[in-house]
Amino acid sequence: MELKRARGVRDFPPEKKILRNWITDVLRKNFEKHGFSPMETPIIERFDVLSAKYAGGEEILKETFRFKDQGDRDLALRYDLTVPMCRYVGMNPKIKMPFKRYQIERVFRDGPIKLGRYREFWQCDVDIVGTGSMLAETQLMEVADDSFRDLGLPVTIRINNRRLLNGIMVDSGIEDAETAILSIDKLEKLGKEGVKKELSEKGIEPEKTEKVFSYIDNDKIDDIELESEEGQEGKRELKELFKNLDKAGIEYEFDPSLARGLSYYTGTVYEVFLKDAKIKSATAAGGRYDRMIGDFIGTGHEYPGVGLSFGLEVLSDILEDKAEKISVTDAFIIPINTDCLSIARQLREKGINTDIDIMGRGVSKNLKYVNAHSIPFAIIIGEEEIKKGVVKLKNMREGSEETLSVEKAAERIRTS
Amino acid sequence: MELKRARGVRDFPPEKKILRNWITDVLRKNFEKHGFSPMETPIIERFDVLSAKYAGGEEILKETFRFKDQGDRDLALRYDLTVPMCRYVGMNPKIKMPFKRYQIERVFRDGPIKLGRYREFWQCDVDIVGTGSMLAETQLMEVADDSFRDLGLPVTIRINNRRLLNGIMVDSGIEDAETAILSIDKLEKLGKEGVKKELSEKGIEPEKTEKVFSYIDNDKIDDIELESEEGQEGKRELKELFKNLDKAGIEYEFDPSLARGLSYYTGTVYEVFLKDAKIKSATAAGGRYDRMIGDFIGTGHEYPGVGLSFGLEVLSDILEDKAEKISVTDAFIIPINTDCLSIARQLREKGINTDIDIMGRGVSKNLKYVNAHSIPFAIIIGEEEIKKGVVKLKNMREGSEETLSVEKAAERIRTS
Repeated sequence: MELKRARGVRDFPPEKKILRNWITDVLRKNFEKHGFSPMETPIIERFDVLSAKYAGGEEILKETFRFKDQGDRDLALRYDLTVPMCRYVGMNPKIKMPFKRYQIERVFRDGPIKLGRYREFWQCDVDIVGTGSMLAETQLMEVADDSFRDLGLPVTIRINNRRLLNGIMVDSGIEDAETAILSIDKLEKLGKEGVKKELSEKGIEPEKTEKVFSYIDNDKIDDIELESEEGQEGKRELKELFKNLDKAGIEYEFDPSLARGLSYYTGTVYEVFLKDAKIKSATAAGGRYDRMIGDFIGTGHEYPGVGLSFGLEVLSDILEDKAEKISVTDAFIIPINTDCLSIARQLREKGINTDIDIMGRGVSKNLKYVNAHSIPFAIIIGEEEIKKGVVKLKNMREGSEETLSVEKAAERIRTS
Repeated sequence: MELKRARGVRDFPPEKKILRNWITDVLRKNFEKHGFSPMETPIIERFDVLSAKYAGGEEILKETFRFKDQGDRDLALRYDLTVPMCRYVGMNPKIKMPFKRYQIERVFRDGPIKLGRYREFWQCDVDIVGTGSMLAETQLMEVADDSFRDLGLPVTIRINNRRLLNGIMVDSGIEDAETAILSIDKLEKLGKEGVKKELSEKGIEPEKTEKVFSYIDNDKIDDIELESEEGQEGKRELKELFKNLDKAGIEYEFDPSLARGLSYYTGTVYEVFLKDAKIKSATAAGGRYDRMIGDFIGTGHEYPGVGLSFGLEVLSDILEDKAEKISVTDAFIIPINTDCLSIARQLREKGINTDIDIMGRGVSKNLKYVNAHSIPFAIIIGEEEIKKGVVKLKNMREGSEETLSVEKAAERIRTS
């Protein structure tokens, strides 16, 4: 046997896991702050559920880990958290609406391994099912705004509406809106000329393409005047959402070219980018999918829904530098020929996460350990200190040292 | 397609997941309080790692979900968190000792489905690798003591030592200690006569069995006098541990019959039981395994280790009643022909998890929703209230209602 991991999966050693926990704690806190409740669905699903019509689709099924249990039942590892949520809603018809849930969990894809793509990764999804009101989108944008502020990351939220985009296609005389939108979605990547070329290759007349750009070159929603009912509906929705966001003091950008590839979006779509232009990937994204759940369940009942998904992998990469300085332990006790169990206990009772030497090592070896683990304080206690009822507190970052009571030491650590 | 879950796996709807999060938050807080850091290993492992000699063993392999990736590689879902930790330690020879990590994660077993057994379940493991010192066990017992106090569950920690037990066998003239110990481990279940019968069926002479019981009937470690070196070593270790626990003020029971089935334990073993005798299963358990990691890695290097595992499933069952009253949302705003986005924002900024009606429902429908979700406070705001700069705060548990400023309402909610 070789000691190896499976391909495309990762170990997260403490310093990395502490950072990931910090990120998911920030998200979780903000989800709960806005009235979302946690939920859990299993990692193992029936293959027929994951491969159903209106589930993830052909492409994703090719990347689905599939296996059998002892009873020869056809199972698979989930590839996202959305299809399991749809199954859950379908199996629980008495669920109260709006259903506001979040899930921060792992998903699996047996895809090609390249930089930044993994076979086991986390999704942080927050969704509202049961209403078509723009207040739902508003709530999700508030969650995004608050979360990125707490993460210390200045971002821009780009917003559009698929109804508006469809309307633009109709008003421009383009029949196969879906195909044209797929090209327009690549505006950032291909540039204007690239998109025009692709549209022309798809057989769309240049004058129609020009008409499309006359709409999507606008960055003010009021400057877009559409005849088609769908376009007007999209415009109305966007204006309502923007009004709400202005009131809530949330910054956003209207981006009429934004489509988000997935075909299940029916209304609002959004992507969140770092203001720091070096990072090109969206850090969070989502949109409204008013037909997906109903189609998937197939009962004819409608379940309007809108969701937002944060990318834990991209966020961890961005915040990576933070990891070096992170420790869950506040203080490490180094006893010199003494027994400090009760002092450790006192510190813990005062809310200080306290580790203590259990190897019986000398001071300098212990200080190396403390340093290697980025623990901010070392507490050195010899017989002298025990007698006097004090401890020697060493601030590892500043290198300073002082002798003081356990009580005072706890206070110093807490307020540092 | 039928809307069904796979067999033996569960959905956790919000009320259940909130309880599970509460439990794992308590554990996590206590693990970190005692200097343990989080870590994550993948759910997918190579089958040859999970099936290696000194890994989980034959029986568990029969219950292992096994599958191939697109490259025809032999993979499996991990059945525990210990084997992946051993792999991690083996792959990271520069790891600093002691290695103190915790993991609260899912594991998978394709076993028969019966009450309380699932194919996908959580383990909460905390381990110390790198030292044989009894201070390691002491730390884990402190973690257990603190955690169960925070969970509000009075428990008894039963402790024994496999060296002591082996010594008792040697001193009683029993050659196949392992086999005899397996029977003695069943004392609780079979009773004394049952165990005696089983030992006799295994060909152990009654006088030897009597001798064994003359030792294990003791509940004071000092009353056990052994000739064998291994027994004396076990006794010495237990006495040292008990001295530490007495100093730390931790209650425990010495139980010389406790063995814990698993063959990899080499020293201290312990099980934590509720004082409430209705619950028969251990809520946490573990022990010292000084050879397992070294044997598994196969480098000849020794990695003494000691661990403690909490049972999330049994803890959730015990604390189930709590679930009905749990909500992550503190307050729910019911606007009457008003727009309360900024009031919601103010409350959230004051640390109140605040939800708000997005369905445009009337007061009584909204109150039903608030009630169904066990949200403790409803805040009703009409035009009148907006004008006066106040809100109507309804305490859902007490049924009382008062009109006050947003500031005061936040304070009332926070201190309730």
